Amino acid sequence: MSASEITQSLDLTASDLAANFVASLSSMVMPGEVLKAARLRIIDTVGVAVAGSALPALQALAVSLARDDGAGQLWGSGRTAVPAQAAMFNAAASHGEDFDDTHTGAVVHGSACVVPAAWAAAEERDLTIGDLLRGVIAGWEVAARVGMASGGGFHRRGLHTTSVAGAFGAAAAVCAVWDLDARQTRNALGISGSTAGGLNAYLEDGSQGKLMNPGFAAQGGYLAALAATAGLSGPGRVFEGRHGLFEALGDGPEGVLEEFDDLGGRWEIREVSTKPYPFCHFAHATVDAVLEIRGSGLDVQSIDEVKCRLPAPTFDLLCRPWDAKQSPSTPYSVRFSLPWLVALALVDGEITRASFASGLLSRHDVGRLAQQVSVEKWGHSPFPDTYPGSVLIKSSSGIAEAEQLTNRGHPTAPLDGTTIRAKFVDCVAVGDSQRAAHLYDVLSSSSSTTRVRDLSRHMRASLTTGPR
Amino acid sequence: MSASEITQSLDLTASDLAANFVASLSSMVMPGEVLKAARLRIIDTVGVAVAGSALPALQALAVSLARDDGAGQLWGSGRTAVPAQAAMFNAAASHGEDFDDTHTGAVVHGSACVVPAAWAAAEERDLTIGDLLRGVIAGWEVAARVGMASGGGFHRRGLHTTSVAGAFGAAAAVCAVWDLDARQTRNALGISGSTAGGLNAYLEDGSQGKLMNPGFAAQGGYLAALAATAGLSGPGRVFEGRHGLFEALGDGPEGVLEEFDDLGGRWEIREVSTKPYPFCHFAHATVDAVLEIRGSGLDVQSIDEVKCRLPAPTFDLLCRPWDAKQSPSTPYSVRFSLPWLVALALVDGEITRASFASGLLSRHDVGRLAQQVSVEKWGHSPFPDTYPGSVLIKSSSGIAEAEQLTNRGHPTAPLDGTTIRAKFVDCVAVGDSQRAAHLYDVLSSSSSTTRVRDLSRHMRASLTTGPR
Repeated sequence: MSASEITQSLDLTASDLAANFVASLSSMVMPGEVLKAARLRIIDTVGVAVAGSALPALQALAVSLARDDGAGQLWGSGRTAVPAQAAMFNAAASHGEDFDDTHTGAVVHGSACVVPAAWAAAEERDLTIGDLLRGVIAGWEVAARVGMASGGGFHRRGLHTTSVAGAFGAAAAVCAVWDLDARQTRNALGISGSTAGGLNAYLEDGSQGKLMNPGFAAQGGYLAALAATAGLSGPGRVFEGRHGLFEALGDGPEGVLEEFDDLGGRWEIREVSTKPYPFCHFAHATVDAVLEIRGSGLDVQSIDEVKCRLPAPTFDLLCRPWDAKQSPSTPYSVRFSLPWLVALALVDGEITRASFASGLLSRHDVGRLAQQVSVEKWGHSPFPDTYPGSVLIKSSSGIAEAEQLTNRGHPTAPLDGTTIRAKFVDCVAVGDSQRAAHLYDVLSSSSSTTRVRDLSRHMRASLTTGPR
Repeated sequence: MSASEITQSLDLTASDLAANFVASLSSMVMPGEVLKAARLRIIDTVGVAVAGSALPALQALAVSLARDDGAGQLWGSGRTAVPAQAAMFNAAASHGEDFDDTHTGAVVHGSACVVPAAWAAAEERDLTIGDLLRGVIAGWEVAARVGMASGGGFHRRGLHTTSVAGAFGAAAAVCAVWDLDARQTRNALGISGSTAGGLNAYLEDGSQGKLMNPGFAAQGGYLAALAATAGLSGPGRVFEGRHGLFEALGDGPEGVLEEFDDLGGRWEIREVSTKPYPFCHFAHATVDAVLEIRGSGLDVQSIDEVKCRLPAPTFDLLCRPWDAKQSPSTPYSVRFSLPWLVALALVDGEITRASFASGLLSRHDVGRLAQQVSVEKWGHSPFPDTYPGSVLIKSSSGIAEAEQLTNRGHPTAPLDGTTIRAKFVDCVAVGDSQRAAHLYDVLSSSSSTTRVRDLSRHMRASLTTGPR
């Protein structure tokens, strides 16, 4: 009998498996590598969220949500709100520059949903980094599996896999932080089904609504856990069945149980890729391949043609509709435009956060070169295990080719500590990189018994000098 | 050229049409019948919400959400919360006894989502009943059209049409109360797409998660409007297109534009049915048909067989799985069980709120009779224009038949004023029906310049004597 056959014979549902795992975490000794991965996810998420929170609309939203007596810090704003709305804000901010991490196999930006929810839960009850870490691990294990079980089905329907899976991840995270029992956790996962969704309609016009997908997922998961704590019951078969998640929003529930069967055996949080670039993850390896060719002496002025090869499931985000991708309407939408990102890398030799400043769209050098770019389908690529990229450039000096099978920052090609620290400091520093570096050290070295509220106070103190 | 052809030639989207309509409401003189319908929707919703808020889990949730300085009243609890969470709580409470109204053609419990969102929006800015009425009208016009445009498609996917449509209704309601302009309203509707969802997974086990579907819709709509007010942009084509609502969650966007083309011409809020019974709307006419036969001298002891005929789309809620419907697991799930509701009506000669007390499941007289009930598909019924019911009862004294083509409370068979008032008083009275009657009078007769916060104070004062 296989593990999943045993599970089926016990008549356990996928949410039973998830709830039992989440509820058992507080009595489990977690592998050091898993705790280390969770700590990295927290630091990286705080960094990109503080960067994202500078968006004017988010700063205005922070004012609307602010409560003097709120327990939830709105990262990067110096304000507080009720915890669920702090989770919402921080999740939206985490996704603000599209600089947050991704589980490639699941195609889920899990940290954007999970970390803010777990943080708010820990703040609300004045809990510790140890509790926060447990929540982040629980949330990631659940969110990654929901995304993997979908096999791209949510995305094919027109939905943001991140927010669909993230609602359950956020609920699991809060349940773990609060150490709810398995019954309550199962109810919370069931109630989360009411919040699972998030359209990809922003793809057509690059509107900011995208940020609210993880925002609402984080908030929904938090409130589902709160409702379960209050005693509300949720459907036991939220993943399976005629009206379950995968039937309603995906391609059907086949294989869900198997995906949940090795919780605690395989740790998906270790499989998360940290982004070195603030744009769509699917374009990272392509840009690195472009930079490799450029670095070997290419004359950018003499380029005739740039041919990229990408896995077909990435086309929706980077290449459709092609006309709109060649003429992006906002600097934000350049983050999701293959031709512009490739042209930007070729002209500047690098892409950083500063590349997306408001003058970007008037750069005719980049716009012109973007017209030379084309893309074709990569038949048998390693996607989604990794997000590969492959480029062929024709210029007056001949043909050059480069292929990156693995996105840099993938667990098999991890960023080094210096790069991660520099990313954090660049994201958080508002005129004072020393304070940012100090905050990095506090976040990365605090003992697990440190209270999350103390971390929040550190953050607020580190960010008060800037124009925020 | 038809109206919709003109619309298409102007390249307007469905959310353009909705936003233009909502933004124009404050300068429009609304028909008296429309204002009257909106007032009735508010009163009926407050009544059923106060009744629903007595659920222990909701009372516990109210404690968790409570903020001394929150502008949003949690109806029936005497507590306040931040406005969006008050909208969530009140929406969940509105659906607590399944006693809230329905637009039959759209199959949408719109008031549960729209009224709490509009109320919270008016409280937050200290606005008037006139503003509240405008919001409720805007919300209903949008929610009904989203539901109608789905043609049952959301439900077939496994989703709660009420919460999918309700998220947009709630956003429209808040935008109208706050008198946002068309651009902001369009952004709010676009952002609402991130919150649209709500699984019907509760159908399998009758769990309370169902309540949170309108709860999250009301909250999501409120926060979408708040985010739009802060300047966040949302997708302009949230209903149409490859990643739009109807493609992602329904059968496709065909006909959406036509459904939105007569906003302001046809008033859907006038087409809402008020429930006389606290259970699934689809069963109302069946129960009335049963009571008609019983009233003509049937000997209940001698019944051999009760055959019901129902439109097929109602089977999911009332008849599937049949085994579970014949053996409901909680008094709550009896509200969605055709055989038990029919048996209850036959044995008691009436069904009231009190019928669903905790002893219900141990009533073997009802349980036995439920075994005699069967159901068959009604081929060409007036559903969904009305929710019809038809019954044939075989007993030792022969065969009796009755058919109700229209659910009582439908706009074509409206409840009279006395019945509506009695329903309100029964829902709200906690040992003091005089105070409840007074609250009814205040809600129904206050001038449109009365502040909603004053109504909230009246409600709190009316409800402080009971055990709440």
